[in-house]
Amino acid sequence: MWNLPPNDTVLHLLSYVALTAQAMTAALAAGRRSMDWAGVCMLGCITALGGGTIRDVLLGHYPLVWVQNPSYLALTAVAAFATILIARIVHRLNLAFLVLDAIGLVVFTMAGCDVAWQVNASLPIVIVAGMITGCAGGVLRDILCNDVPLLFRSELYASVSVVTGLFYATAFGFKLNDELWTALTFAFGLTLRLLAIRYKWEMPKFIFEDKR
Amino acid sequence: MWNLPPNDTVLHLLSYVALTAQAMTAALAAGRRSMDWAGVCMLGCITALGGGTIRDVLLGHYPLVWVQNPSYLALTAVAAFATILIARIVHRLNLAFLVLDAIGLVVFTMAGCDVAWQVNASLPIVIVAGMITGCAGGVLRDILCNDVPLLFRSELYASVSVVTGLFYATAFGFKLNDELWTALTFAFGLTLRLLAIRYKWEMPKFIFEDKR
Amino acid sequence: MWNLPPNDTVLHLLSYVALTAQAMTAALAAGRRSMDWAGVCMLGCITALGGGTIRDVLLGHYPLVWVQNPSYLALTAVAAFATILIARIVHRLNLAFLVLDAIGLVVFTMAGCDVAWQVNASLPIVIVAGMITGCAGGVLRDILCNDVPLLFRSELYASVSVVTGLFYATAFGFKLNDELWTALTFAFGLTLRLLAIRYKWEMPKFIFEDKR
Repeated sequence: MWNLPPNDTVLHLLSYVALTAQAMTAALAAGRRSMDWAGVCMLGCITALGGGTIRDVLLGHYPLVWVQNPSYLALTAVAAFATILIARIVHRLNLAFLVLDAIGLVVFTMAGCDVAWQVNASLPIVIVAGMITGCAGGVLRDILCNDVPLLFRSELYASVSVVTGLFYATAFGFKLNDELWTALTFAFGLTLRLLAIRYKWEMPKFIFEDKR
Repeated sequence: MWNLPPNDTVLHLLSYVALTAQAMTAALAAGRRSMDWAGVCMLGCITALGGGTIRDVLLGHYPLVWVQNPSYLALTAVAAFATILIARIVHRLNLAFLVLDAIGLVVFTMAGCDVAWQVNASLPIVIVAGMITGCAGGVLRDILCNDVPLLFRSELYASVSVVTGLFYATAFGFKLNDELWTALTFAFGLTLRLLAIRYKWEMPKFIFEDKR
Repeated sequence: MWNLPPNDTVLHLLSYVALTAQAMTAALAAGRRSMDWAGVCMLGCITALGGGTIRDVLLGHYPLVWVQNPSYLALTAVAAFATILIARIVHRLNLAFLVLDAIGLVVFTMAGCDVAWQVNASLPIVIVAGMITGCAGGVLRDILCNDVPLLFRSELYASVSVVTGLFYATAFGFKLNDELWTALTFAFGLTLRLLAIRYKWEMPKFIFEDKR
């Protein structure tokens, strides 16, 4: 999921927080399906690390982050497991987790763009790689929980990722990819997502019935 | 999805048409699930490009077609989006879309065989690669729409792809892979699929109940 | 799925038996969903070979086993197809198939560890690769049958795979990876799984309701 240079300590830290948060909300989803403890841990790992994994497989960017650094697996599995013990608290902190998830969306999107940029992908692919990194984990979670992915139906999420990626990629184009721009992108993407949650901004839905 | 030499202009053109058609029918499926606009575009891209993507990932054939040539993403996303505006028309042209989908099945199967052939896969893998290219996109669509894949239950589809691939691969064996044989395969596969639709040819079903 | 040195003939033979058994139980699952004959064969192949395929894609370990050796595809497709003819018998031999499936779980886990070991993965990844090889095929089957994966909810399965992998990997650590240890691991893992089935050992479930 994560690939910023080590000096980006703030973002690096945020990405750990976001991985933890995504694993924990995935654990709640697992609990709604009465999965067992092993299932909870697996769903946590898959949700938190799945987006970056799909990105790397599609780009042929090996080794995968968690293969190279298995501590990510440990972190997300432990976070998911801990959620079993503190489910009520996690549920009550719903709002905090929405914010943490928003942080994850933005941070993972930026990390995805970075990776695609490193492998010399073209601009559209940089954006798509960011979106996949930010969003695909949740899609895997919903598939494994046997739901139609929320991503395709709920408030602005993928779109926030795309816009954040576009904003971030501008810096690549103008060669301004320094700490300032990274911070700006982070603030921009996070604000966008939080506003979307607060005011329930939604894409229009396409509702189609077979009956005439 | 596509990899024929540039002089195969007719097939090349047909593949664009087929990608568009597959993205549009996927968009209708998205509409039946009330997905939002972003979801519609994503489902269109995944359905139209997913088969070739899975093939390339399984064969380790990088970079993926749409990574190298992002215009495929744009084409399928735009086609899916346009479907929102003209859903009634698309639905009424049901028959035309069945034909376009059949063209896609055959063209993608042939393209898949070509790619596997290029990476020196054995004959069975050439056939399987053709089938995956032709069919797997629809399976992804059905998984994301939370259905049991239609592919596994409806009229001859995967089988048409396999037979088309076998027919096409004969040419590789006999070193006759020229324009004539390509055209013959196309006509053969398309006829087979259209006959299967027209006369509702189906594989026998395997119906198994646990009760005795 | 399989990669032990050719002299491990017993394990090699067992892996063929296990592939066959997994394809046959997948075929019954396909029959419960009224899939057609082609769907039955495909589901058999995907279930039996899917775990090793996902492992290899995640590790970037190409070519895939069944691409290099398409006889695996033939074996599993034929096994699935044969199940259509002898569904009643297969169903009545439920117990035998549980044992065969347990053999598969252990043998595939060990094969997965071997592959990860060969590509110099770290210990945690060796364990995870074993678990993916042993378990992921069944997850794919359940996704394609539109179920919440059984793996996440039923008796010890993934956990048996993890413990078996840990036991097996000990040998790598102590450089004792000879025939004896392989046999010991096999006996240990199989016993564990059979005891789990016999005494219905289950992980505790995490049941979470949104209502307070």
